[in-house]
Formats: sequence, structure tokens, C-alpha cells
Amino acid sequence: MVRYKAVISYDGTLFSGFQRQPEERTVQEELEKTLLRLNSGRPVRVHGAGRTDSGVHAYGQVIHFDLPQARDVEKLRFALDTQGPEDLDIVSIEEVTDEFHSRYTKHSKTYEFLVDNGQPKNPMMRNYATYYPYHLEMRPMQEAIGDLVGTHDFSGFTASGTAVENKVRTITRAELEVDEKTGFLVFTFSGNGFLYKQVRNMVGTLLKIGNGRLPVSQIKTVLESKDRNLAGPTAAGNGLYLKEIIYED
Amino acid sequence: MVRYKAVISYDGTLFSGFQRQPEERTVQEELEKTLLRLNSGRPVRVHGAGRTDSGVHAYGQVIHFDLPQARDVEKLRFALDTQGPEDLDIVSIEEVTDEFHSRYTKHSKTYEFLVDNGQPKNPMMRNYATYYPYHLEMRPMQEAIGDLVGTHDFSGFTASGTAVENKVRTITRAELEVDEKTGFLVFTFSGNGFLYKQVRNMVGTLLKIGNGRLPVSQIKTVLESKDRNLAGPTAAGNGLYLKEIIYED
Repeated sequence: MVRYKAVISYDGTLFSGFQRQPEERTVQEELEKTLLRLNSGRPVRVHGAGRTDSGVHAYGQVIHFDLPQARDVEKLRFALDTQGPEDLDIVSIEEVTDEFHSRYTKHSKTYEFLVDNGQPKNPMMRNYATYYPYHLEMRPMQEAIGDLVGTHDFSGFTASGTAVENKVRTITRAELEVDEKTGFLVFTFSGNGFLYKQVRNMVGTLLKIGNGRLPVSQIKTVLESKDRNLAGPTAAGNGLYLKEIIYED
Repeated sequence: MVRYKAVISYDGTLFSGFQRQPEERTVQEELEKTLLRLNSGRPVRVHGAGRTDSGVHAYGQVIHFDLPQARDVEKLRFALDTQGPEDLDIVSIEEVTDEFHSRYTKHSKTYEFLVDNGQPKNPMMRNYATYYPYHLEMRPMQEAIGDLVGTHDFSGFTASGTAVENKVRTITRAELEVDEKTGFLVFTFSGNGFLYKQVRNMVGTLLKIGNGRLPVSQIKTVLESKDRNLAGPTAAGNGLYLKEIIYED
């Protein structure tokens, strides 16, 4: 048995997220379908580092799977890439020891969230950035986003009723920039793990701060109160990208 | 009767081009459907500057149409934009004299053509750039593209059997750059008019030159011979953008 780690990239628009679900088209299912063919009809289980939601994109999702024999990694990458669907790409594959697990091996993730605040929106990017039609001030958002950095209980930024017990996570980087070429807002978050819908809830809150309907101090208020009702709405998934995953070695 | 000129932007992926055709979803049809509603059920005819093909995108297509009464242009833009489909935007509207005609008033057009030469391709951009999986040398393409500038008979770069008799056009700008952020090749062409499939045929020929399967001198050869068979294949429409139209005043 040989274990492979792969970096994959996908357009989330036509996927019901990463994780296999009955009757839905998912990234995991598409990968397992292709691997089944490449493995002479024997099922291969794919494990992903993060369960991206419906509509969420990835440039650097990481998966692992086991095959009975060793393969040439470039040939394997090419086969998996070209025999799979158009909206899912295999960026790279490497052989790893069986101690590696895409989800449990310690890692940090970087997410990016794109917001189109143009008038009108860019129609080419309607599935690749979240459109926000209201006025936004950069300053308050840039001030508030810094409050997310550090080790906090992020209960107020996750969907209520989440099964995970420990909601303490560490964010090492939280930044907001404007892309010069597109004019889009680019939110970047890095950390050792993110709760369900956490990034989208943080962005939804920041946008309300930028629009002046919540004070700059609201991020702190949500972190301290752990109250989901004090945060902004969940931003749509189409602006979210799983950008990169870096594993500790 | 008041004439309006509008700049529009659309994602060509789900349109069968600009021009109205029976049983097909086209940009013209969508605009006329919305204008019919805004004009109390009386039909409004839309005239476009260029007939983009199926899959071809636009950031700066120009149209004109007549309405029986004067309207507030920003309200009209907003109504036409929000009541129309998601993949079609109204960037701006202005009132013009009835001497203006989007197609016949003298103008220059700029087209951009994006090529993804990455390994693997970017799945998010599969409908917004043409994927070219083979090796490309920039130098020969950059040398050859300059030969397109000037006034030439472009018969060798148009689809055979085109109805237009005069195939002499002037190209004022023809450039190839690499986008630093995406790594995509960006071909830019400006001129006083382009023949059917001309840009896609020019790009298809340049790509074959970049791949070493045609000599750098091939652009000159096609212009001089006027022979379509000596040019490269027609590049796919998904990489093509009608970028800007500038009218003489």
C-alpha cells in the first residue's frame, strides 16, 4: 500500500461541496469515481483536509488516498487530471508515508474571500466573487479585521448547533486589500483551523462594519460575548477560496 | 423619440452570441425582452456595435435603442441592469442624437484574447480563457504579432465564404503580454473593424508560431497570399473579450 498526497483545485460552482453526499455531485465523489477506474475497479477512499461548502472554490485543497502499488506520480497526476471533470484539476501529487493524513496532520490553512463592490458588478465574476452593492469604507474594516488575529473562542462566528466542542482557534493572519486590477476586496485569513462557516461569518460582519451598520468594535464584542446573533450575516460561498494548506513536518 | 447609447458587459458562456436567432438565448433578445417591459409592452429594437459569437465575452459592447420619451439615464440604467439576467450588465447609458448608430458611426474596437498555458489549467477560468496545453515561446509570437499592424487585406484570417466584400481593415495595435498575476497570455488588438472570426484566427496562427509549428514569417505569408489554409486553426471563443469601443465625434 502506498499513500499519495495531492494538491487539487476546483471551481465550486457546480459542486455541492467537497464531502460525499447521496444524490449530490461532490468533489470527493468525482475523485473517487476516477480513482476507481484507475485502480482497476477497486474502490479508493479519498480524504480531504477541509470540507468546503457548496459553491466554495479551492486553489490548494489537499487530499490523500492509498493505492495498492507505487505509481509514477506525474503519470498518476496526469491521468487523474485528464480523466476527471473539467472543473476539477490535480495540481500536484507526491508519495507520502502512511503517517500523513490530510486532515489530522498538523497544518495551517489560508482562505481568501473576494468581494465585488463595483457598480455594476462584473458579470464574468458572478460565481467567483460575492457581490456587495452597498457603500463600503475600507478604514473601519481594516481596523476591525486585526481584532480577529490571535487565539480566541470563535463560537460567535460559527453556525449555531455545530457539533465541534472546542471552538478555540488561532488566526495568524487577517488582512484586507484591494486588488488593483479588478478593484475587488480581498480578505485573507490564515490559521490552524476554522469552524463551520467561520470565514463567511467573519466577512459578513466586516462588511456590515464597512457599511457603517455595525461599529468597528463589533468583532471584539462578538468574540467576547460568543453570541452569533451579534455577528453579521453569513456571506455567500461564491467569494470563498481555500487558497493554501501548509503542513508541519 | 429619444435615442440612448449604452455600454454593456456580459459573460458569453451561456449566450449563443449577441445577435437574435430563433430558439437561441442571445444578448440582443435578453435586452429587447427587458426593454419591452420597461416600455409598457411596446417592442424596442436594439442595435449592437459588434456581433460577438457564442461564448465570446464583452466588457465594452455598445448598443443603441430608441424610446418614445426621455428618461432619467441612471434610473434607466439601473432598471435595465437589475431587471435583466445575471450574466448581462448595463455599465452606463447616455442620451445621444439620432445621428448616432452603434454600428455605422465611425469607431475603433479593442479585443482582448486570454490564453491559459498553465499546467494544469485554472478550473475557475475554463470559460474565461482558452486553454493551450502545449509549449509556447513568447519571442516568436511577439515578433510575428507586429506584422498584423497596418492596413491589410485580411482575407486569409476570416472564415471562408464570408459575405463582406471588402476585406481590407486597419489594425492600429497588436500586442502580446503575460499577466503577472494569472500567468495568462493577453493578446490585444485594436482597429477600425474586424472580419468574422478574424481575431480568433489571428490568435490561432500566433499560437502555432509560438509552438514552433509555423515560422515567424507566417503572418506575412497569410496576409500576402490571402489564403485561409495557410493560417492556423480558429482559437476557441471563450478566451475572447470585446474590451472597448471608441467612437469618433
